[in-house]
Amino acid sequence: MLTYSLSDTGTDSLYVYLYKCIKNDILRGILTAGTKLPSKRSFAKNLGISNITVENAYSLLVSEGYIFSLPKRGYFVSDITFPENHPCSCYYMENISNSSPDCPPPYEPSTSPAVFADFVSNRTAPESFPFSIWAKLLRETISAKSEELLTNPPCGGTIELREAICAHLKQFRGMNIHADQVIIGAGTDYLYSLLLLLLGRDKIYAVENPGYTKIEKVYRSHGVDCRFINMDSSGILVEELNQKGADIAHISPSHHYPTGIITSVRRRYELLGWAAAHPSHYIIEDDYDSEFRFAARPIPTLQSIDKTERVIYINTFTKSLASTIRISYMVLPPHLLSRFYEQLSFYSGTVSNFEQYTLAKFIRDGYFEKHINRMRNHYRAIRDALLCAIKKSPLASRSTITEESAGLHFILKIDTKLPDQELVKISSSHGLHISCLSEYYHGLKPENHMPHLSHAIVMNYSGLRKEDIEEAVRRLCESILTAD
Amino acid sequence: MLTYSLSDTGTDSLYVYLYKCIKNDILRGILTAGTKLPSKRSFAKNLGISNITVENAYSLLVSEGYIFSLPKRGYFVSDITFPENHPCSCYYMENISNSSPDCPPPYEPSTSPAVFADFVSNRTAPESFPFSIWAKLLRETISAKSEELLTNPPCGGTIELREAICAHLKQFRGMNIHADQVIIGAGTDYLYSLLLLLLGRDKIYAVENPGYTKIEKVYRSHGVDCRFINMDSSGILVEELNQKGADIAHISPSHHYPTGIITSVRRRYELLGWAAAHPSHYIIEDDYDSEFRFAARPIPTLQSIDKTERVIYINTFTKSLASTIRISYMVLPPHLLSRFYEQLSFYSGTVSNFEQYTLAKFIRDGYFEKHINRMRNHYRAIRDALLCAIKKSPLASRSTITEESAGLHFILKIDTKLPDQELVKISSSHGLHISCLSEYYHGLKPENHMPHLSHAIVMNYSGLRKEDIEEAVRRLCESILTAD
Repeated sequence: MLTYSLSDTGTDSLYVYLYKCIKNDILRGILTAGTKLPSKRSFAKNLGISNITVENAYSLLVSEGYIFSLPKRGYFVSDITFPENHPCSCYYMENISNSSPDCPPPYEPSTSPAVFADFVSNRTAPESFPFSIWAKLLRETISAKSEELLTNPPCGGTIELREAICAHLKQFRGMNIHADQVIIGAGTDYLYSLLLLLLGRDKIYAVENPGYTKIEKVYRSHGVDCRFINMDSSGILVEELNQKGADIAHISPSHHYPTGIITSVRRRYELLGWAAAHPSHYIIEDDYDSEFRFAARPIPTLQSIDKTERVIYINTFTKSLASTIRISYMVLPPHLLSRFYEQLSFYSGTVSNFEQYTLAKFIRDGYFEKHINRMRNHYRAIRDALLCAIKKSPLASRSTITEESAGLHFILKIDTKLPDQELVKISSSHGLHISCLSEYYHGLKPENHMPHLSHAIVMNYSGLRKEDIEEAVRRLCESILTAD
Repeated sequence: MLTYSLSDTGTDSLYVYLYKCIKNDILRGILTAGTKLPSKRSFAKNLGISNITVENAYSLLVSEGYIFSLPKRGYFVSDITFPENHPCSCYYMENISNSSPDCPPPYEPSTSPAVFADFVSNRTAPESFPFSIWAKLLRETISAKSEELLTNPPCGGTIELREAICAHLKQFRGMNIHADQVIIGAGTDYLYSLLLLLLGRDKIYAVENPGYTKIEKVYRSHGVDCRFINMDSSGILVEELNQKGADIAHISPSHHYPTGIITSVRRRYELLGWAAAHPSHYIIEDDYDSEFRFAARPIPTLQSIDKTERVIYINTFTKSLASTIRISYMVLPPHLLSRFYEQLSFYSGTVSNFEQYTLAKFIRDGYFEKHINRMRNHYRAIRDALLCAIKKSPLASRSTITEESAGLHFILKIDTKLPDQELVKISSSHGLHISCLSEYYHGLKPENHMPHLSHAIVMNYSGLRKEDIEEAVRRLCESILTAD
């Protein structure tokens, strides 16, 4: 009769310990295939434990395949060995000999060193986020909506949030849409991927050159054909869209990043004409920071003047609320909705109900509008202080500032002989994280930089603290003037 | 001199109204290309308004491209018309003639009619979710972590949550991993898509037949080669993986859906041997409901016995916490991490920091373990009551129950002549939403149903309320027995 000492089972319960003893004997070949195990009753009696303990251990061994049972005959050891030349055999032996692997060494790519001022990344300052209102609305949502919070919403998102977005877009962007057209997603990257599945992987996607490099990366990571289209001062070049056979034009007509170009009204109609000319043509209108336009009122969206349902509008709360609350949305033209629901509605939503309902309330109760206004003033103050500090500095006579009235960045063109890469490197050694306009151009080699593209710093100031501005500008002067 | 009546500007501010007047005159051709506009000063004087109002209106028109300015010469109307045969021209005219589109008609695919009992969907009952604890932890997180909440986490997720998951997996699944290996994502669908980009779109993906149909849909929607691999009672067939040239095997060895099969230990080592045999081979181990195994302790994961880093482990809180809190994770083998960070770290995270920090605290403070235990008891009670109601019912003599000790469903095999589709249809007319095992088989035509696959209902009971059980079983009897 099989026997084990059960006097010290460590932290294991009795049946787990027994299971482990038998398993080890099977793995070590002490109990060989076909061996009959003792009956539950006699084994229990022999070990001085209850029948149920043996039964639990046997059940576990059966469920994992170490033993099997035959009706009215009892339990037998399974054949778990492999012939010697079987590809699993060494693997299997190795596993038996060492069953407790060490914890693998940590691997996290080193994050960039702490910088004094970051003119590249967008980050929301903690003092800018309406924590107490958000917490209040979350609390109200949890206490009022327990049923809805746990009910799976339609694949496009909760009706409340989609309706709140509709009302917002109507009031602030003149857009006349229905809640069904709004699709919520966890960030624009996710929505780009979803759109790519909807519009087709076989299509040719066109992105702006220069442009926000991430958009191209998303398309490339999916292995689709993605082409760069040059821009002039009125926007993306329509004749190039035709020359390069583009199907989908992914553009930001309200405010181009990083040049700040606003697509002219003539070009807008040209683009709509291009889109209407062929059934495979669509425009993805990325309206990512339209809320923060300082000069006059925002430009009407392409979506709102589009009659032929060729524009897909995309916007995000990651810019307007917080980059760490992952909520974005797109507005599909009505004729694409049935395709979306047929082909992609099996995808589960990506945004938690808790945040969808809270954001819906935040918009509906007017807090979002207040927040936008407050942030616009905040960003304007930062911008003004930054411009003022530059104008008072030795840089004033060596630089020109353009595109300062739209979005959360401007272009600071420096009169210098330093190549752009040097500019970035030297600034970095002074604790500044900057990027140059030339970095956003595809296929632009340093040797054939056009002069108007060189030495132009893209100054993202949304993450800058007011109290750091003077010092940041002093460091910028120091980097550029001493190195030149 | 241009003149407009500014006596009734409606809800518009003065400059917006002026902007609209001029824009309309340009669009209607009253002001033609090249026309010089009055100087700001004289126009303001003429209209009896301030210079700044005219300036704001002109700025807006310039930024939208309706007019342009020439230094020291003033403002001129842009050429925004198109030649008659230009593809934009009719489009453009149409736009002018009607600039206020009607709201499109609503389009939402009709949701299925309300059912009395749903044996198909997984849904968390509101009384099961720990609202007050969740609200408390959210509140604590918001008050203690304002800085961290607004700081973009690494692409894999916040360190806190990844460490909490590591500790949980070590304790409950015997897995020895490092936080860097854990990648957080908004649902498993999203993680499947990310994995597909990581492992390669050119690979052959293998899914279980029968199986959870959504997995295949995700692969197909991305246009990758996805093949079905048959199962026997020990798990997926390894020789078929070889025959069909699979690179990636997507399996659920701990608990297969819907059959409940637990992959035997011999098959596990065979699978690991298959995976180790070729550098393109990987196993995606979908451990989606391992927390709710009733009999004995959970089966060890493939990941924990894998020595050759060929297993990618995936699990989700959408089953164990709430389907509407969209948090899932995968554990990458160390050698895949550098590829992940190089190729895909530009993707922004998909889960809000607020929920990541709250969940981390929920796990770390022991609430998750308590919740799992409470839910396991809850589900066990539902299952027992359901089994008991079936056994007391007229169905008892006409049915067999299998696989009742793992996961949140069992198989109810009915002795009936009704085809499966009829079973589903008739039950639906009695307010029951059911699905049959045969629906999860790919390529199985009704005419060649194997007898052991027919008439087997997959009874998901996780969303069932205790008080509805008797009535649900009564309706099930009624549907089947009266129709037969």
